[in-house]
Amino acid sequence: MKILALLGSTRQNGNSQYLTERILEGTDHTIVSLSDKQINPIIDKRHSEGGFSPVDDDYEELLHLLLTHDTLIFTTPLYWYGMTGPMKNFFDRWSQYLRDENLNLKEELTKKQAYVVVTGGSSAKVKGLPLIQQFNYIFEFVNMEFVDYIIGSGVKPGEVKEDIMALEKAEQWRRNFESLQR
Amino acid sequence: MKILALLGSTRQNGNSQYLTERILEGTDHTIVSLSDKQINPIIDKRHSEGGFSPVDDDYEELLHLLLTHDTLIFTTPLYWYGMTGPMKNFFDRWSQYLRDENLNLKEELTKKQAYVVVTGGSSAKVKGLPLIQQFNYIFEFVNMEFVDYIIGSGVKPGEVKEDIMALEKAEQWRRNFESLQR
Amino acid sequence: MKILALLGSTRQNGNSQYLTERILEGTDHTIVSLSDKQINPIIDKRHSEGGFSPVDDDYEELLHLLLTHDTLIFTTPLYWYGMTGPMKNFFDRWSQYLRDENLNLKEELTKKQAYVVVTGGSSAKVKGLPLIQQFNYIFEFVNMEFVDYIIGSGVKPGEVKEDIMALEKAEQWRRNFESLQR
Amino acid sequence: MKILALLGSTRQNGNSQYLTERILEGTDHTIVSLSDKQINPIIDKRHSEGGFSPVDDDYEELLHLLLTHDTLIFTTPLYWYGMTGPMKNFFDRWSQYLRDENLNLKEELTKKQAYVVVTGGSSAKVKGLPLIQQFNYIFEFVNMEFVDYIIGSGVKPGEVKEDIMALEKAEQWRRNFESLQR
Repeated sequence: MKILALLGSTRQNGNSQYLTERILEGTDHTIVSLSDKQINPIIDKRHSEGGFSPVDDDYEELLHLLLTHDTLIFTTPLYWYGMTGPMKNFFDRWSQYLRDENLNLKEELTKKQAYVVVTGGSSAKVKGLPLIQQFNYIFEFVNMEFVDYIIGSGVKPGEVKEDIMALEKAEQWRRNFESLQR
Repeated sequence: MKILALLGSTRQNGNSQYLTERILEGTDHTIVSLSDKQINPIIDKRHSEGGFSPVDDDYEELLHLLLTHDTLIFTTPLYWYGMTGPMKNFFDRWSQYLRDENLNLKEELTKKQAYVVVTGGSSAKVKGLPLIQQFNYIFEFVNMEFVDYIIGSGVKPGEVKEDIMALEKAEQWRRNFESLQR
Repeated sequence: MKILALLGSTRQNGNSQYLTERILEGTDHTIVSLSDKQINPIIDKRHSEGGFSPVDDDYEELLHLLLTHDTLIFTTPLYWYGMTGPMKNFFDRWSQYLRDENLNLKEELTKKQAYVVVTGGSSAKVKGLPLIQQFNYIFEFVNMEFVDYIIGSGVKPGEVKEDIMALEKAEQWRRNFESLQR
Repeated sequence: MKILALLGSTRQNGNSQYLTERILEGTDHTIVSLSDKQINPIIDKRHSEGGFSPVDDDYEELLHLLLTHDTLIFTTPLYWYGMTGPMKNFFDRWSQYLRDENLNLKEELTKKQAYVVVTGGSSAKVKGLPLIQQFNYIFEFVNMEFVDYIIGSGVKPGEVKEDIMALEKAEQWRRNFESLQR
């Protein structure tokens, strides 16, 4: 069992990253901050002759990570009631590579398990729900199991450390991951 | 009454653009394809000393358009059950400029009226609803009136031309805009 | 093609009924006001020995209508952001009869097509969306096609007559039904 | 601080009741099973001359409980992706009594704090979200604080006892209530 956490935040050491690090403590894992990578927006060529063009950015490195891990944690602060722009570009580009016959992305994704970590203000428990629904549709589309999600409360640096329930759930996930990796 | 349509698609002449052009026919308006502009992802410095840094991209041009129009049409195809990455980056950056005291963005946004155009497959009428809810939260946050939305059916080029109800609603908006501009 | 419209309202001649009558004009159809019927709340005995008990109310008459029509229109005003209590009791009771081996309800439902009509205040276009999502989950569960929905604006008697788009959509459905019944 | 728990289930000793009893253990509280009460559906007379008519059922007893408690727990199993019919009828009737000048319901509701407990199958964490959104709109409408919610996993009797996180959250609420009542 190999865990990959993708961080959507554009801030270092924010609340969503903190929760994710609690979840991963003591586990074997890979953690990547999407904003450290160059991820170009998709250029939709689904209906163009010739199809998609190769893109010169860091996406193939991310694809490789996707393909070589089976447990995926998608972590994002709530930006304007959605995932962050860099994470959105990450998903948008799936449309390109799901069609790439050299990869086996479509089939591989069906074998993975998805976890979602969202942090935001105190209203995020309700106003983050459309994002959870969106993640659910995304995972349904690629036939990936959506195991669970955490919506943590935290805007200012460190604030999520006071969200006892989010920390408990993080710890529950952590213990589960740890036991699965033993 | 000045109309600004922002297109989120990364494809030229797609279904969402077609619907938007029907809405705008015969009106005074500005139409901008966000993917023609360089819009960097936000770098969240809300909690950094010194705050946000100036960004060298096309965003100030878009801000100027925002500030000088009062009717805003946000048009996006449904990409992975959300707005497109470029449009998401567009909204994310609001967090930077709402804090900019030289602009008057926060107050100006409250005076505007928002319309949303979404296109997607036949399931978009249901699976696009989290996106409508997200737009609603965005507009609520900046205290902008969310007048109405269209969810059109169309994936392949031209397909939306067969969505009679979407076209009727587009025509209804068009007539309304036309009469308000007379 | 046989159309059954179930009205959830507890008011005669309200806006949701008006829209439904526009949809049905000139078609062969059955229209039933659920509040004219005695529909007891379910008594959940899924996990009781002996299972469900027969209920002495009007539900079997409604079941018979369900089974003998193939196009179902569920019409409800938005009461507290949901369907009305009588309509909710109607659905809750499905849990009893889906288990009834003398009926063939489960299989029959999969052959039907569902339409939804909701009316409410001007905010219903957004605040009625959780109800649309709920209907979608209901229809998915019983594997019934969810063809389309209308969210009309109208609270005071007659108000929906000014919701041009709702009326146009009603008329579009009507023409479609009429042509299918020819 | 006086706690009132309203149970929507039509089954005795089900999962939602179990969770609620854990939350209330050791606290002063009132717990009422709505299905033990006669709650007639509303008859909408908002637009009728003379307005609403008195209703001969148990609702006034429930109103009295509402008015004399300040912390409200709304507990419901997920029935067809919504609250149960009896609970829906309970809310629908608010429309009648919010207009009753002899009561002070409208103003009193604004002083209360709402908690929601939902139980359902493993999909309830996602498919129960429209219900959470509906509760949120209800509480917003009456200007009542929506403090928090639990979505527990449990269909068969006793199943929720294995939902560790739901139990932990129940215990967290319990400790909070206990300390507030000291």
